[in-house]
Amino acid sequence: MSASAVDFSVWLAERAQHVEQVLVRVLPPDDALPARLHRAMRYSVLGGGKRVRAALVFAAARACGPVLTSQQEVERALAQDLAAAAVELVHAYSLVHDDLPCMDDDVLRRGRPTVHVQFDEATALLAGDALQPLAFDLLAQMPIAPELIVQAIRDLARAAGSLGMAGGQAIDLESVGMALTQQALQQMHLLKTGALLAASVSLGGLAGGANAQQRQALEAYSAAIGLAFQVIDDVLDVTADSAQLGKTPGKDAAANKPTYVTLMGLAQARSFAGGLHQRALAALSPLGDSAALLVGLADFIVLRDH
Amino acid sequence: MSASAVDFSVWLAERAQHVEQVLVRVLPPDDALPARLHRAMRYSVLGGGKRVRAALVFAAARACGPVLTSQQEVERALAQDLAAAAVELVHAYSLVHDDLPCMDDDVLRRGRPTVHVQFDEATALLAGDALQPLAFDLLAQMPIAPELIVQAIRDLARAAGSLGMAGGQAIDLESVGMALTQQALQQMHLLKTGALLAASVSLGGLAGGANAQQRQALEAYSAAIGLAFQVIDDVLDVTADSAQLGKTPGKDAAANKPTYVTLMGLAQARSFAGGLHQRALAALSPLGDSAALLVGLADFIVLRDH
Repeated sequence: MSASAVDFSVWLAERAQHVEQVLVRVLPPDDALPARLHRAMRYSVLGGGKRVRAALVFAAARACGPVLTSQQEVERALAQDLAAAAVELVHAYSLVHDDLPCMDDDVLRRGRPTVHVQFDEATALLAGDALQPLAFDLLAQMPIAPELIVQAIRDLARAAGSLGMAGGQAIDLESVGMALTQQALQQMHLLKTGALLAASVSLGGLAGGANAQQRQALEAYSAAIGLAFQVIDDVLDVTADSAQLGKTPGKDAAANKPTYVTLMGLAQARSFAGGLHQRALAALSPLGDSAALLVGLADFIVLRDH
Repeated sequence: MSASAVDFSVWLAERAQHVEQVLVRVLPPDDALPARLHRAMRYSVLGGGKRVRAALVFAAARACGPVLTSQQEVERALAQDLAAAAVELVHAYSLVHDDLPCMDDDVLRRGRPTVHVQFDEATALLAGDALQPLAFDLLAQMPIAPELIVQAIRDLARAAGSLGMAGGQAIDLESVGMALTQQALQQMHLLKTGALLAASVSLGGLAGGANAQQRQALEAYSAAIGLAFQVIDDVLDVTADSAQLGKTPGKDAAANKPTYVTLMGLAQARSFAGGLHQRALAALSPLGDSAALLVGLADFIVLRDH
């Protein structure tokens, strides 16, 4: 592992810990009524995960940030914290609902019982329902220009909605047992996973004061890594074991869901991810050295083993 | 029925028809992919309902509006349309999720099969999930000052979240078979129903350019009618028949849920609603004649028979 890869993994671990602390603060305390719902919300969100989406917010902001006064720095940091927490809340809510019996019916997530197993189905449903508006509320509290808040809210709303994450999940459900073309599979994943990853990068740019050129570079980067993330997920579903994944491997293939691996084979899927990796790095060139963390995240997403 | 009551019911019917048209436009077309999800979203939202929340937006805006240029009038009308659509989307999503088997397990809503019966559980879950961000996206598109948009988004987020509608629903679930005090029952209903009704009034004020004094009057009004709405719902659950309600009557009592009627008896519940009605009307006095539609809505909420 190179020195910069070590630095990156230290940074990533520190940011994951940091956003965990932010989430601890922004979630309602679990003794506040309704206590069971609040306990379920905290259980849904806290306790780890890779926090890739939060890291994308922080890295994108870092890639764009001009030199600031110390007061501006404090505000900029708070805006990033709130944006990072917001995307993690939306991600967490989507996992809670995806795990429900009427969806993927999963009982294990990150090595722990899923929310409806630990609590009950109705509470899991409501916990997800309540996490979503909390995310928008956090964005609305960012100490940046109100026009930029409004833009951030539009970005997150679209990423979460029927033309984003929820839409991708719906296509996924419909596609079980069907032979999808690569184009259709790509469309599904762009919505299901890519939309929120892209919104994370975009929100980081907004919180970090990106100009138009920087935002364009970020957009091209996030389109490539969003897709690469899912291709690698499909690869790992076949190659990793349960302890590495923290969930049941081979589940997608067993459920007869189309994946990049079933579509193009393992070697070809890896090569496709490699090409997307290169495209992501090329997109960052206008940003220069300040994009080092985004480079690190692209490497992390494509080269991870779980 | 008095002349003004006739005028009011004409206005209410016209506004219901109007917001239906707005909703037809803002919902994704049902041939856009993912088509099944979009069909379920449209089925969830369109086709009626009393549209009380939308009417509260329009009436609150009318109560506050200063004299405007014609260009301002067009923008103000668009802001109200978007706010009215947003609250109806949140209301519709909450009904879809409340009807799910793991919640109230209802098969009939407004005389039609509920969404999970008409489609399937997973699609109903996702339709609700996708309606919520669309509501925030609509608010973000209002042609009003960005600071006011941000305030509107905070209002709606809180009304929908764990300290609002979702929280009230969670308390409702936990309270089945329990003897609640009036205070606890009131707290539940303030969250479950009152929060979104209050947000509708507040968003109407924001879209209509309310000043601080007007906003205060609106807040006192909405607190009273929010609670009155639920008390009357409990009364109608006992007194109305299935054809009037468009849903199964007596269901709450049969499910051993605490209601105002089980808590205080029918006569006392009616009298309590009457007192809230008077409190709502008193709150409007600073607004003068421009609040006539809000008076009409208070009357409508308390005196309705379904």
